Amino acid sequence: MAKQTLLLCCSLILNLLLINLFMHGELERSNWTKTAAVEAEAVASISCSGHGRAFLDGLLGVDGKPVCECNSCFKGPDCSDPIPNCEVDADSGDPMFLEPFWLKHAASSSLVLPGWHRMSYEFEGGSLISEELKNHIRRLHSVVGNANTDGRFIIFGAGATQLLNAAVHALSSDHDGDAPSSSPSRVVASIPYYPVYREQTEFFKSEAYRFHGDTMSMKNEMDYLSSNYIELVTSPNNPDGQLKKAVLGGASVKTIHDLAYYWPHFTAIPAPADEDLMIFTVSKLTGHAGSRFGWAIVKDEAIYQRMLTYMSLSTYGVPRETQLRVLKLLKAVLEGEGKEMFEFGYKTMANRWRKLRKIFSASRRFSLQDLDHQYCSFSKKIRGPSPAFAWMKCEREEDKECFQVVKSAANVSGRHGSLFGSESRYVRLSLVKSQDDFNLLLERMEALVQQEPHNKKIQQENERNASMTFGVGHHFLQHPDLVSYINSYKSMDEDM
Amino acid sequence: MAKQTLLLCCSLILNLLLINLFMHGELERSNWTKTAAVEAEAVASISCSGHGRAFLDGLLGVDGKPVCECNSCFKGPDCSDPIPNCEVDADSGDPMFLEPFWLKHAASSSLVLPGWHRMSYEFEGGSLISEELKNHIRRLHSVVGNANTDGRFIIFGAGATQLLNAAVHALSSDHDGDAPSSSPSRVVASIPYYPVYREQTEFFKSEAYRFHGDTMSMKNEMDYLSSNYIELVTSPNNPDGQLKKAVLGGASVKTIHDLAYYWPHFTAIPAPADEDLMIFTVSKLTGHAGSRFGWAIVKDEAIYQRMLTYMSLSTYGVPRETQLRVLKLLKAVLEGEGKEMFEFGYKTMANRWRKLRKIFSASRRFSLQDLDHQYCSFSKKIRGPSPAFAWMKCEREEDKECFQVVKSAANVSGRHGSLFGSESRYVRLSLVKSQDDFNLLLERMEALVQQEPHNKKIQQENERNASMTFGVGHHFLQHPDLVSYINSYKSMDEDM
Repeated sequence: MAKQTLLLCCSLILNLLLINLFMHGELERSNWTKTAAVEAEAVASISCSGHGRAFLDGLLGVDGKPVCECNSCFKGPDCSDPIPNCEVDADSGDPMFLEPFWLKHAASSSLVLPGWHRMSYEFEGGSLISEELKNHIRRLHSVVGNANTDGRFIIFGAGATQLLNAAVHALSSDHDGDAPSSSPSRVVASIPYYPVYREQTEFFKSEAYRFHGDTMSMKNEMDYLSSNYIELVTSPNNPDGQLKKAVLGGASVKTIHDLAYYWPHFTAIPAPADEDLMIFTVSKLTGHAGSRFGWAIVKDEAIYQRMLTYMSLSTYGVPRETQLRVLKLLKAVLEGEGKEMFEFGYKTMANRWRKLRKIFSASRRFSLQDLDHQYCSFSKKIRGPSPAFAWMKCEREEDKECFQVVKSAANVSGRHGSLFGSESRYVRLSLVKSQDDFNLLLERMEALVQQEPHNKKIQQENERNASMTFGVGHHFLQHPDLVSYINSYKSMDEDM
Repeated sequence: MAKQTLLLCCSLILNLLLINLFMHGELERSNWTKTAAVEAEAVASISCSGHGRAFLDGLLGVDGKPVCECNSCFKGPDCSDPIPNCEVDADSGDPMFLEPFWLKHAASSSLVLPGWHRMSYEFEGGSLISEELKNHIRRLHSVVGNANTDGRFIIFGAGATQLLNAAVHALSSDHDGDAPSSSPSRVVASIPYYPVYREQTEFFKSEAYRFHGDTMSMKNEMDYLSSNYIELVTSPNNPDGQLKKAVLGGASVKTIHDLAYYWPHFTAIPAPADEDLMIFTVSKLTGHAGSRFGWAIVKDEAIYQRMLTYMSLSTYGVPRETQLRVLKLLKAVLEGEGKEMFEFGYKTMANRWRKLRKIFSASRRFSLQDLDHQYCSFSKKIRGPSPAFAWMKCEREEDKECFQVVKSAANVSGRHGSLFGSESRYVRLSLVKSQDDFNLLLERMEALVQQEPHNKKIQQENERNASMTFGVGHHFLQHPDLVSYINSYKSMDEDM
């Protein structure tokens, strides 16, 4: 009896405790972040079959929920239907290969953005730049060892895009005073060069600078020491992935180093870059191309000040929500000194390159650029190439328009070689897009190479041999070993 | 006995239920949004005495938490110490007056930004613009009735800043083709005009356009019909708050309407604007100046396409996190058809204007612009003025440098009249900043006006009368009625 009373008392006390805990929990969850969390979780849970994604700001379906946005060549309400014979887009350098990394690291990379976050035009002291983010950028470069930031100024911009023009503007000969310059600075780059250099410089029609074409042709001009030059150096180079150095020299030449791809995903890091003006972008570091965030590391204070003025009059700085987000992403990258993200990035890119090379090694019609193994001071070993792009050449005399060849024979849309200042027998293929895009590219290129006469002959011989071995020729593909051999090219990346 | 057993059973069942509920609650909270929510709530709970704020990306204190960032003229770890004789900054149009609205609406305006949100360069179909956000912008204009968007194109940019230059570039005479134009378009604006028009147009040194000064002086020039003109029209005008119309006309004149302030906070809305090219910005709508987000409404498709190219080569569009955030903010504004935010904004601004006018009404040395009452189609009544800026004039012959007068006599830093193309006897005072900033401005201006001889005389007479009435002259300020009378100018805004 007394025992039962004691038990009852204990049970009642436990009830009270649990009710208290539960109420407390409820209260904790009825805060101002709750609605946003529920909303984000609901959208994240919409299934798009792995071939698409629903977003918080997506168009709404009939049920009032955002609809799946499918990867190219997939359709249907949950993106599960492949679109037959669809054009494969290998044009854009859209770095979606890193999306799986961020899906895996959802908790450390997501953030709550309060409605009142940094409404002001300026940070304390009138700056347009988050000091905390600047500190994290310095730390990242020091951890990766790809750039020296000691005693340098750092400025933010809307991706490399805005920073490139800000740098050209700041380095051009006529920047202060109202008098038109008698001779605009000549902007040059080595062929093959990133098309935006030319497009941007020509589009803004500034009196202060002119696009002047290939660096190499300037080198031979007698007057290159008497004019003002701005040399754009891209390392690793877009499109061909080669590490590059400046070509021109002398007091009248200023250089801009576009180091967008100088990260372990895409290249070995032989040593920290230590140039006068270096440009980086988060697009090619974390894959957040849509965030439009980049930074420049600048040695000279006067140039830095001119770039600040440019930012001020062009956009008044980078959105504060973008700066907050990039800070959160860099914090996630720096957990474990960046090893995990760069390992994922390198393995993915190296794998893609290996597979593409294997296909092209059977081709006499098409070739890819040569890239060497190299010692990487970040991974502390000699490593193979893992470029962002394939710089493909049509070798046959008659295939002068390589873009058209690939487009009509494989329905793959690359980027025309002439845009890079090169011959039309080159075309750039993007390797940084989603796994779906890359798989389709691989499939189409394999089929294209298989059509070459010498490969057809080998295939016919194989078929004859197989038919002799197994007796029933048209069933040979069902032999498990052969199927796996043939499919090995098409398999998903090993390390993903 | 049986009753006690029943009670025990019930209690045990309740225990089990509660344990189950509690476990379930725990699980629910252990999702990927948890860390971010906890982090944001912790920062939001840091107290800065109402004179500052801690932010998620703020610099960290010794305890590893972000430190308070104090409003100007306050200091200390929790911003509770006023800085004596501190310079009052009335220069910037930083729209912090809306921050209290967003603090109050934390739950509906905050959002969770997943680490993988819209990493791609582009939305589906290659656009750089969220369709859902565009739809909400159209809805907002239709609800407020301040702009006609039917059949118009909408383009996003980094605030009005970027859109202004994009528009000037798109409207300039030489936009396609490489040949330098024989005559660059002439960019004009009516004095007093927003200083950025001149600064930006001159800074970019384009061959396609030139800043050409005051619209009015052009009107009298004989050749204005034979040259290409781009007229910038600001309505309500920055700095003086007047509603404006284009001055020039004819086929050779193109207009850009900067309608940044055409919202019920700052002006009555007589009718929807229906111009060829209209520019708006979220800075002056929701107060999120740091988000660098604006939009243009464009009638002509060719102009729209040229502006798209500009955005593409300048920044490659507005960050996706910014677009997501602005969407969330507009959704919060549109709850209840925008009534709550615009009522808060109008009351705050009208109140500030009334208080400032009251002080200036006692001045013979300084004057403010005149603004009329007007019918507002949004609020459906005749309403008083509520401008974003005071356009102040120094009336004394010797006060030629009004900026300096206010600076040295009141330690208030306004914006120099000459920057607006006006005489130096004008100065612009910002009324849109935080309540702290406005209170200090009011206090200083009151003291300045009280120093005028006729006010000193009145004060001396009051003192004499008070001393006669109460006997002990130097104690008059302690009479409660007089204290409240004298302090009435200094009181906090009534409606906040």
